[in-house]
This record gives sequence, C-alpha cells and structure tokens, in this order.
Amino acid sequence: MNTTTVISQENIVVGEVANGLPLTIPVYRLKGDGTGPSVYVQANMHGAEVQGNAVIYQLLEQLKQLKLKGDITLVPYANPIGCNQKSGEFTLGRFDPITGTNWNRMYHCNSKLASQFAEQYRDADEQALKSAFKTTLIEEVDQQLNGPAYRLTTGKRIALNLQKLAHQADIVLDLHTGPISSQHLYCPDYAKTSASYFNIPHVLFIPNDFDGAMDEASFCPWWQLTEALAQQGREFKVQVEAFTVELGSQEKIDLSAALDDAHSILSYLNHKQVFIEAAYQPKIMKRYGCNLNNYLAYYAPMGGMVEYIAPLGGHIKAGEPIAKVLRMERYLSEQPLQTLSLECDAIAILHFASASVNQGTELYKFFTNVFEL
Amino acid sequence: MNTTTVISQENIVVGEVANGLPLTIPVYRLKGDGTGPSVYVQANMHGAEVQGNAVIYQLLEQLKQLKLKGDITLVPYANPIGCNQKSGEFTLGRFDPITGTNWNRMYHCNSKLASQFAEQYRDADEQALKSAFKTTLIEEVDQQLNGPAYRLTTGKRIALNLQKLAHQADIVLDLHTGPISSQHLYCPDYAKTSASYFNIPHVLFIPNDFDGAMDEASFCPWWQLTEALAQQGREFKVQVEAFTVELGSQEKIDLSAALDDAHSILSYLNHKQVFIEAAYQPKIMKRYGCNLNNYLAYYAPMGGMVEYIAPLGGHIKAGEPIAKVLRMERYLSEQPLQTLSLECDAIAILHFASASVNQGTELYKFFTNVFEL
Amino acid sequence: MNTTTVISQENIVVGEVANGLPLTIPVYRLKGDGTGPSVYVQANMHGAEVQGNAVIYQLLEQLKQLKLKGDITLVPYANPIGCNQKSGEFTLGRFDPITGTNWNRMYHCNSKLASQFAEQYRDADEQALKSAFKTTLIEEVDQQLNGPAYRLTTGKRIALNLQKLAHQADIVLDLHTGPISSQHLYCPDYAKTSASYFNIPHVLFIPNDFDGAMDEASFCPWWQLTEALAQQGREFKVQVEAFTVELGSQEKIDLSAALDDAHSILSYLNHKQVFIEAAYQPKIMKRYGCNLNNYLAYYAPMGGMVEYIAPLGGHIKAGEPIAKVLRMERYLSEQPLQTLSLECDAIAILHFASASVNQGTELYKFFTNVFEL
Amino acid sequence: MNTTTVISQENIVVGEVANGLPLTIPVYRLKGDGTGPSVYVQANMHGAEVQGNAVIYQLLEQLKQLKLKGDITLVPYANPIGCNQKSGEFTLGRFDPITGTNWNRMYHCNSKLASQFAEQYRDADEQALKSAFKTTLIEEVDQQLNGPAYRLTTGKRIALNLQKLAHQADIVLDLHTGPISSQHLYCPDYAKTSASYFNIPHVLFIPNDFDGAMDEASFCPWWQLTEALAQQGREFKVQVEAFTVELGSQEKIDLSAALDDAHSILSYLNHKQVFIEAAYQPKIMKRYGCNLNNYLAYYAPMGGMVEYIAPLGGHIKAGEPIAKVLRMERYLSEQPLQTLSLECDAIAILHFASASVNQGTELYKFFTNVFEL
Repeated sequence: MNTTTVISQENIVVGEVANGLPLTIPVYRLKGDGTGPSVYVQANMHGAEVQGNAVIYQLLEQLKQLKLKGDITLVPYANPIGCNQKSGEFTLGRFDPITGTNWNRMYHCNSKLASQFAEQYRDADEQALKSAFKTTLIEEVDQQLNGPAYRLTTGKRIALNLQKLAHQADIVLDLHTGPISSQHLYCPDYAKTSASYFNIPHVLFIPNDFDGAMDEASFCPWWQLTEALAQQGREFKVQVEAFTVELGSQEKIDLSAALDDAHSILSYLNHKQVFIEAAYQPKIMKRYGCNLNNYLAYYAPMGGMVEYIAPLGGHIKAGEPIAKVLRMERYLSEQPLQTLSLECDAIAILHFASASVNQGTELYKFFTNVFEL
Repeated sequence: MNTTTVISQENIVVGEVANGLPLTIPVYRLKGDGTGPSVYVQANMHGAEVQGNAVIYQLLEQLKQLKLKGDITLVPYANPIGCNQKSGEFTLGRFDPITGTNWNRMYHCNSKLASQFAEQYRDADEQALKSAFKTTLIEEVDQQLNGPAYRLTTGKRIALNLQKLAHQADIVLDLHTGPISSQHLYCPDYAKTSASYFNIPHVLFIPNDFDGAMDEASFCPWWQLTEALAQQGREFKVQVEAFTVELGSQEKIDLSAALDDAHSILSYLNHKQVFIEAAYQPKIMKRYGCNLNNYLAYYAPMGGMVEYIAPLGGHIKAGEPIAKVLRMERYLSEQPLQTLSLECDAIAILHFASASVNQGTELYKFFTNVFEL
Repeated sequence: MNTTTVISQENIVVGEVANGLPLTIPVYRLKGDGTGPSVYVQANMHGAEVQGNAVIYQLLEQLKQLKLKGDITLVPYANPIGCNQKSGEFTLGRFDPITGTNWNRMYHCNSKLASQFAEQYRDADEQALKSAFKTTLIEEVDQQLNGPAYRLTTGKRIALNLQKLAHQADIVLDLHTGPISSQHLYCPDYAKTSASYFNIPHVLFIPNDFDGAMDEASFCPWWQLTEALAQQGREFKVQVEAFTVELGSQEKIDLSAALDDAHSILSYLNHKQVFIEAAYQPKIMKRYGCNLNNYLAYYAPMGGMVEYIAPLGGHIKAGEPIAKVLRMERYLSEQPLQTLSLECDAIAILHFASASVNQGTELYKFFTNVFEL
Repeated sequence: MNTTTVISQENIVVGEVANGLPLTIPVYRLKGDGTGPSVYVQANMHGAEVQGNAVIYQLLEQLKQLKLKGDITLVPYANPIGCNQKSGEFTLGRFDPITGTNWNRMYHCNSKLASQFAEQYRDADEQALKSAFKTTLIEEVDQQLNGPAYRLTTGKRIALNLQKLAHQADIVLDLHTGPISSQHLYCPDYAKTSASYFNIPHVLFIPNDFDGAMDEASFCPWWQLTEALAQQGREFKVQVEAFTVELGSQEKIDLSAALDDAHSILSYLNHKQVFIEAAYQPKIMKRYGCNLNNYLAYYAPMGGMVEYIAPLGGHIKAGEPIAKVLRMERYLSEQPLQTLSLECDAIAILHFASASVNQGTELYKFFTNVFEL
C-alpha cells in the first residue's frame, strides 16, 4: 500500500535499577498532517495488565495503513519495573514493591494552576489559551523532572516521563485491565457522549477529582480550567479527553480480543476525526453507565475459599447468590459452604484473581444504580 | 439416613509463626469396619492449589452416606503457611517464602530401611512383615518429630506431621493442581492398572526414585521393600498405593468440578474395596500414559508476552504453533510476533499461569512418546 | 511484692485468613484507681518493627510493680498479618501484601464530627463535653465495625479494632521503628512541652492533618474540637495526647535498649500523673525539633550500591558527604564511586535498610531547619 | 604510573526479561604475561549479597597498579535478576522468585566426564591432559548454551554463561555473604594449605560432592579427574582451586572492609604467583577449621521474636545462652522470655537476618568439632 504512515521508535530512559541498568520504554510515533487532534496511548503501567500491549500491536498494524490527521504516540511496557516484577508465577506489578505505592497514583497535578491561568489569560482567545495552557502543563512536568534528582521517587520519575508525553496530546488513553474483569471504561463526566463510540458495554463516570491516575492527570487541569473560566462567565469546552480503558483480565494475552479492542479504540478516534477517510464505526450494543460513587466494592465478609458465581457483565438481582465461600475447617461445626449475596441490583464488573481470600479482601466490584447510555 | 458414617475432627498443631500463633490443620476421620484398606487424602500443600479442599468437601458429603470397610482420613488446608501467603492478589504458596524450598519436597525417606528390613524379617509372614514395616515407618517419623526441636525446619515439621498420618494408610492421595492445567495423575509404575479407575485422561508413570514428595514418600519405602525381597527370591506385592492427583488449575474453586473429581476418586476407592456396596464406577474414556522421563518441560526461548495456543489436553503435532510471543520493544526492528512450536508430537498438559515470561520461564509441559492405557 | 498491680489478658479477634484461622491480638490490661489519665500503648503495626514488643515486655515488668492512677492497656503484635508476612528473610509487613496499602494509613477520622459537636454541646461543661465526645468517637468506630461486613477491608477491620481501644484512653502511644533509624518522636504541635519528658533526642512536630495514622486518628478529632470551640471563643485544652514513638531500627530485638525505652515512656507517663509515687524522671539531654514540612526525604539520584556515611543522629553540614554510590557497570566509563551530599545543614534521622537502591529509592530522611527544644 | 595494567570491559547478555530488555553483566578483564595461573572472580550471584561488588572495585583499584602473570576476569553484578528483585526494602535475590530455586544451585557438572576422560587420555602428559580437560569442560557448557533454547531455565542460562568464564580460569573465587555473618571460607578439602593465605578466621572444608554451586562446579570435575587417575595409579594434582568467600553480612556496602577483603584475596593470589613482584602477604591470625558435616544449622525451636546473643565469630560453650525468644502472647501463661542454648561447644558463624522467626526458621549456623589450622 503506497499510503502507509511511517512509524518511528524512540527509547526513553525513565530510571535506573540497583545494578545500574537503565529502565527504558519504547515510544512509537506516527505523524499526522496536523489537521486533527493528537493522540497518546499507553499500556501496562501495572505489571500484570499486559493485554494493552497486544492492543497497541493491533493498533500499529491498523494505523500504518491509514492516513492520519493527528499525531499518534503509542507506549507499550510503560512501566519497566512493574512489567518484570515476579513473585511466584504472577506479576506483582500493581505497586512499587518497596513502598506499596500504586504505580498509577503518582502522576502530577497542580490544582492551583487553572484558576491562576484563567485570571492571567482572561483576554486570550481560545486557541492562544489552549496552546499556552498545554505549554505550561508540559513545563510543570519538565520543572520537576529537571529539578534536583534527589526529590523524585522511582515511580514519580516514571510517571512524569509518561505524563510529559501525554500532555502533548488532545486525547489520552491509558490501557489497563482488572484482575478477572469484564470490559469497562473510566470516562470523565463531561465526555459522556464520547463513551458510546467505544465498543465497551460498561462505563464508569468520574468526577473532577484528582487521585493521582494518568487519566485524571490528563483531564483534571483542563476541566479545572473550564470551570475557572465558567466562573468568569466564559464558555470554554474541555480541550482534552482522557480515558482509562479496562480491557478485561490481567495476566492474559489474546491477540484476537486485542484486535476487537483496537477496533473499539479506532472507532472512537475516527469519531474524533483523527483519520482521513477511515471506516471504523462503533458497534450497536447496549451500554450501561454508573457514577463512580455508586461503584460498589464488596469485601469478603469472612475468610475462605471462594467460588465466584456472579458472571462478569451479568445483571444481578438483589439477594441472588454472587459467591460461595468454602470454610473446610468448620465442616462439622457450622455450615461449611456460605452463600453471599448483594442487597441491591447490580452489574458484576470484576472479581478478585484468586479463590483464596482473607476476611476483607476485595471480592467483587459492582455497578449499582445503573442507567442506560 | 440411618446408615451414615460418623465424621470426627481433630486439629493438629504443625508449627508456630512469629507472633506465637499456632499453625493448625483440621483432620477429618471416618471409621470403617476394618475389613478394607485405609485411606489418606490431603489437599492444598501448595498454597494456590485450593481445588482439593473442594474435592474433600464433596468427598465428605458422599462418604457420610456410605458404609466403609477401611478408615478414611481427610486433611484439607494441609499447609497453613502456604495457604495464607499472599503476594499481590495471588497466593505465593509453592515454596517457603523464606528459603525457596518447595513445600512438597520436604518429606522423609530412609532409603536404607527396606534392605535392612528385608534381611531382618526374612522369615516373617506377609502380614507380620507389612505390619512391622508400617510401624517402623511411623516410628521413623516420630523419632524425627520427637528429636531436638532445633533440628527441624518449618517445612519439615509440617511434612512429617502429615506423613505420620499418611503412613497409617494403605492408600494415599495427595491433591494438587498445576498452574493452568488439564487433569493428570502421577502414578507409580507398579500401580498401572489402578490408573484406569480414576476419571483422569492423562497419566504420568513415575519410577522408584525419591525426590521429596508425599506420593513418593508413601510408596518408595514399600516399593523398595518389594525389590529387596525380590532379591531374596520372594514375591511381595507393593502394599501401598500413592498418587498425586492433579485436579486442574490453581487459584480456582469449582464445586461442580469438585463433585466430578470426588466421583473419580470414589470410583478408584470402590475398586480397591474401601466401601460396602457402593456404585461408583470409572467413566469409559480414552486414557493416555507417558513415562516421567518423557515429560517435556518447554522453557520460553525468549522473553515476552505469551498467547498460549496449544489447548490443554490437546494432541499437538510436531511443528504446529503452541504459543505466540509478543515482543513490542522490537516492533520495527524484527518480527514482533514470534511463533513457537515443538519438534515432536505431544499432549499439552499444563502451561504457565501468566502471559509475562522471562527467557527461560517454564512455558508448557508436554507428554511425549504417549501411549494409550 | 504486695503492691503489685494485676495484669489481665484478653485475645481479640480482628479478622480471618484464607484457611479460616482467626487473626487474634493479645491485649494486656492493668487497672488504675481512676484518678489519673488512661493509657493505650500498641506495637508492631508494621510487621518488621518488632522492638515495640520488647518495650511492652519491659513496661509490663515495671508496671506490675507500680500503683496506677489510670488504666493502662498494652497491645503487642498489633497486626497479625504484618507480623507473619515473610518474603525472603525479612518481614514484609509495612503494607497489605495484596493491595499495597500501608497498614498505618487505615484508621478512621470523621473530620466533620468536631464542628457538629461543638455546635451541639455549646452549653455543656468541660467534663460532659469530654465524656460525650469520647463516647461518640467510640460509637463511630463501633458503627463501622458493626455495619455490613462486606464494607470493611482487611486492614480497616484491624485498624478499627485497635482504634476502639485507643479512643478509650487519654494518652496513646504507637510504637514503631524506622528502617535503619535513630530514635525520634512524632509529636502533635500542641503537645510540645510533653516531648521533653521522653528520652528521645529528635522530635518531629506535626500539624492537625489526618493522613490515616493511629496517632493522628487519636488526636485529630480532639484538636479539631478544640479549634471548633475556639471559634466560639471557648478555650478547651486538647484532651488527648498521642505520639508515634520511633524506637530505632526494624528487624531487631534488643532487651536492654527496650528497658531504656520503657524508662523513657514511664518518665512521660509519670509526668502525666499516671502513677502513684513513681520515680521515673526524664534524662537531661539535648533535644532537637523539626517541623514536619522540614522533614526532608532524600531519594537516590541514581541507581547503585550505597555506602551510608551520614551517621544517624549526626549533625551534617551542607556539602558534606552523606553517602557513596558504587556503580560497577561504569568502572571504565565514568567515576564508579559517586559521592552524595546535601545542600543544607541537617540531622540524619534514618536511612534505607538495604545497600541496593533504584534511582528514586528513599535513601535518607533528614531534619532540616532544626531548633533546640 | 607507567606500569599499569589495562582493564577492558565486555557486557555479556545472559537472558531477557518479560518486556524484552536484555539481562547484561559487565565483565572486566586484565591480561597477564601468560606465565601464571588465570583467575576468575564473581560477585553478587545472590541479590542481597552486594559487598563482593565493592571488593571487586577495590581489587580493580589494586590490580591496575600491578604486573600480572595470569589473566584475571572479574564479574560484579553476576545476577541481573537477583540484584534487582526487591520485596519491601530488602533484596529478595537468593532464589528465582518464580520457582524458588536457589540461584547458586544451577551450575552444571557432568559427573561421568572425569572417568571417561581418564580412560581416554591414559597416555597423555599432564599438560595435554589439563588443556584437553579444560577445553572439554568449556565445550560441555557451550553445548548446553547452544542447544535448543527451550531447554534452558532462566537461572541455568545465567549460571552457564558465568561457568563458561570460570572454566577458563585456574582459580575461581565466588564472593558471597551470609545473612548476618562473620567472614568465612568454603574450601575444598584438597586445598587446605591455601586457606591460610586468606585473612579469614573460619574455614569450612567441603568434600567432593556436587550440589550445584559455582565453587563445586569449578573444582568437582578436576577433583574427580584426580581421583579417576589415582585409580590408574597415576598422581595428578587437582589443577583448579575454587572457593566461596563469605565476606560478612548481606545488604551492606563497606568500602573500607572491602579493601581489607581485597588484600586478603590478593595475598592468596600472590601466594599462587599470579603477580610479578607484589607485596601482599597474609595476616598472622588464628584460623579455625570445621568439616562440612559438622556445620550445624540451628532452627528456631519455637516461633517468636529473637534477641541474638551469641556473638558472630565467638566461641560458645555448651549450655551458654545463644539467643532469647520473646513470646509476648504468653506473657501471663508461661515464661515469655525463653533462653536457647547449644548442647556442645561451637563457633557462631552467622545468624538469621530478622528478629521475627517461625518455628523452624534457621536461626544460627555453628562450627562444631572445631580445629585450628
């Protein structure tokens, strides 16, 4: 095909381990003609959540056949420590093994920036404002990266290096998975209409609160800017859309599912006019929404061995069994097989990765107070 | 039901952790009328291999409705450290987290015992010989348990306590699982005919070598005794049968599969005349065998993210793809999707639990040079 | 001795692990005559920080010889999961191994309570107010403990059980250690004068911000109440004092140092009139203070193998070497031995427990802008 | 200095991790004039045992000022996985985190080789025999490294790459440390006289049994060859000396102690005539020996918190206290402070790295039946 887009690769250094070897991350870039929004996609920030790498593979296979309006940057293996942190057969890459800090809670957000900026750029036009704010966000990250080296934790340095790439884009997609999980999407409340362009049946709507994650770090400053300008009576659309795309279960590579996921993302990007003449369209499907404060974590009410019953993506009625807990040390002294249920209707989104649970282990997460999109 | 068999419970102490809390294991016992062989079943020696507990649950549910000839002892949660050793969401219970020693390689076997015994009991009749040897095996274990406390490692103490129970039985079943695995059975070579009474399609035949595992610790001394007596020209059947039953995948509880597995075990026990008038019969199915030295471990020839293709239990032809390895850091520099295959026909028995592998991680295990039973 | 105080023991259940065994914590109680403040002391919330158990041992040995005005409750082994969580030879007990959450960030604080209370008890006298607020704090905890079991994480359940005990006391001491550390004390700003009654040379003054720790959970509500009443123009002393006592290094038991630490605590308690006629007095020593916002974390500016040079408790001048980093993979290409220093004067309080560090590992913590108490 | 020896560096690739990054090890080489024995030194095969890297640093600093007869190869950071495997603050690098296999038990030894060789080279002179055997040992390793990639585990591949370097040398030193440990030396029985040229007070004499370690892998084949030739009546000195040098405690870098250790090694190498005119001489000191079968492991007879009393390197009398075990959960019910002792005289060589121990944790290792060298 004579219209293919060139892919270039850069390896960025985001740290160093104890024996001095550099931690590097591959960054793939495709150039657009500059007439569409730019896109940033990363995967595998949590070590066990590998399927996003396969999705980036399938995206590259598609993208190289397309003509692009906007630049696209794709980053697999975003966390070279998390990726390679084994403990037994599984990948222990959800948090820094030294400190316990979740790798996806270390991004940066200066919550004072938006209001200062709204004041300072009161008279700027939309394009100037957008451009200046983007520059400032990148400078903020650079300032930290270029400050005294002794001020940055391992995870912060990785996060800032990624965030610097993400701030250059208008659309940010952070590819994750749950433990054992159905597909779902974290979508900022203001971007509700975009949610229906992904082929993802379950959408979680999140508010303008920064809790350290990549998606929030990408959209919160812009959302705050919109709000600050609204207080001046000025309407200014949030300029950046950012999503956490939960692809399914961790510790799995499935190339065919990855192709479906790539199509889902391409459909959304097509809607955002990233491509010149591409055919990707969303599937017709029922999509269900839930607000973050109705996203229910169900912790094991007792220790034991769990058979998970509520099917992922399944609509559960109040009182229906969601799991059975086997407690063999009590075979004679009490009912050794306890049935758990929920007190309200819900959709089961994900469950714990192991059958062995302590009392208080997060067993399931449920959408409650569900609505149709 | 007026014919039910009484179940009794004892909790045995097998150690103490750092804050002084005792490590206890529940032991369930059912009495027979003394006319049949006695049975020992344990589960969950490896922390993540929990399905055996569900099988013991289903066994108890069945056994309490039967009349027994032989005594039956059932031990779920055989390893209270392994059971509760979490690292991230998964259970890190395959080895002692302090030393790395596999919990199922710490049983005891005195390889000199059999020949000494054959000499000493040259003139004893079969029954006396069996009874004396059994007593001696138990005494050997007791001697170690009652020796200076400072001589026993954590794992040895747990193993010896279990082994003491196992040596009292004529039939020993150690319930395990693979990582992601099809059902298979470790069967000592001399007990080939028994293998067909389990509903397990894949049987691994193992020689008379002690490598520290429960099944070997149970049958090796008896097999050695048979061999020592054979050198005297005396025929003496191996008096004990011991199997490692691999139930499927780790980290899973499936009560319905557990019922099937219980039926499989009950069918074997029925064949060994443990019950008075029970109906359990083996399923008619093709069973495939493989000798241990043909059990092929296939280690990842490169690091990467693996899509497992060879289906578990599936018969693979030489050269067919068994897995794909995604190597996204080389998307531009070489073929990023490598296909792996095997140089001979095989049955895929189990594969690694995670998609993330280092070069040299055990990817698959295969039966090769397979024969039908 | 005919004046000894009786010690009683209760074992409280704070959870259950996967094989159904209960997690229990021993609670020791001594009764006072009711005329003095009551005291709560706990140790070993972080698994590797064991020295507090030895301090509780030495406290009990002393206390049983004293007459008490106030009740004293002592809780060693406060975290039965953390205590027993090994990974290699060391204890991995700083965070929940499943989630990464720091065990000492899971206590409860309802920050709205104080202002509501100040309004509601506007006319109550000091004693009534104190008593009612204490009752309410305990009820808040009980409410959560008695709510739906599926709402509590493993760590929250442990924390709430301990917090319920702590809220009953007027003085709360949470015994911790650093990794490799000198003795230091976390002291709420309002309790400055109390700091000098401990034999601890380094004191960190912390503001009225709740970040999930036991000391904060104990004093923040009372401090908030004082502030809320101050806004009414009413003076109301903060009724509770709570400290995190950092005893030294983790993974060490030293009974003689524990006796010194016990004397330090007894000296403070004697000052607070917990005892009838006791002789414990603080040592005469220089004590240095530092405000929490001047507590400097120094992260490794490069990966490597570290020789720690700054002595713990030592006063470091700006520019002096604090550590050397060996980078053997660069022996020929650059200076393989890098010297690190600080840009300001400081006292070295603690350093990392291992010589192996990634870029960004917390290497040292320093008091800066130090003042004498 | 115009006489300095040139150091060259090569980075060898010994594997690949999951995100495809290569595992590399730096190899430093110095050339001799060919008239003396060649030397191989490696460090840090176990991740936490870092001090050997500092010793290699100090060796390089000395060696570059010397004239060498034999070639010297030095390999710091020998295990790039173990080096960087953190779990909490400590380095979990004693065993493969996936399998539990000790990294220093994966070397190769073909125990049939020596006797075949003795037969085949019956008529060869000493030099030819040595040279051919060395070539064969290297070829054996190469054969495995160049065989099907799917046959090698992660650890085997690392071990074989190092072993290939080691087999090229006449003297092999593997630098390790204990957990908390005094200096000691593993010395093959035939090299007894060499032991006194190291400045190491405690020497463990080991027999000709291969258990997978580097030192054994280096000397066992040669020792077996000597024995096989002795059976022909031919005297043939063991041509290779290999030692495991235990430098002290893990997780520590001490550059000044490293200089002492470098002098100790240089003194031995000087004795072996590796240098032209060097002044290194052993210190005059008492050296104590112990045979491996008298090296006593003392496992914790109960769970608890341990104060280690027996000083490392200290000569302990039978019955003297070696440790106290605090068991605070039994403060009222039994003696909470248990004293442990040994039933024979001994030298305490090392103890466990943590105060928290399960029943059965290896508490101490002792030399017993000690003799003076």
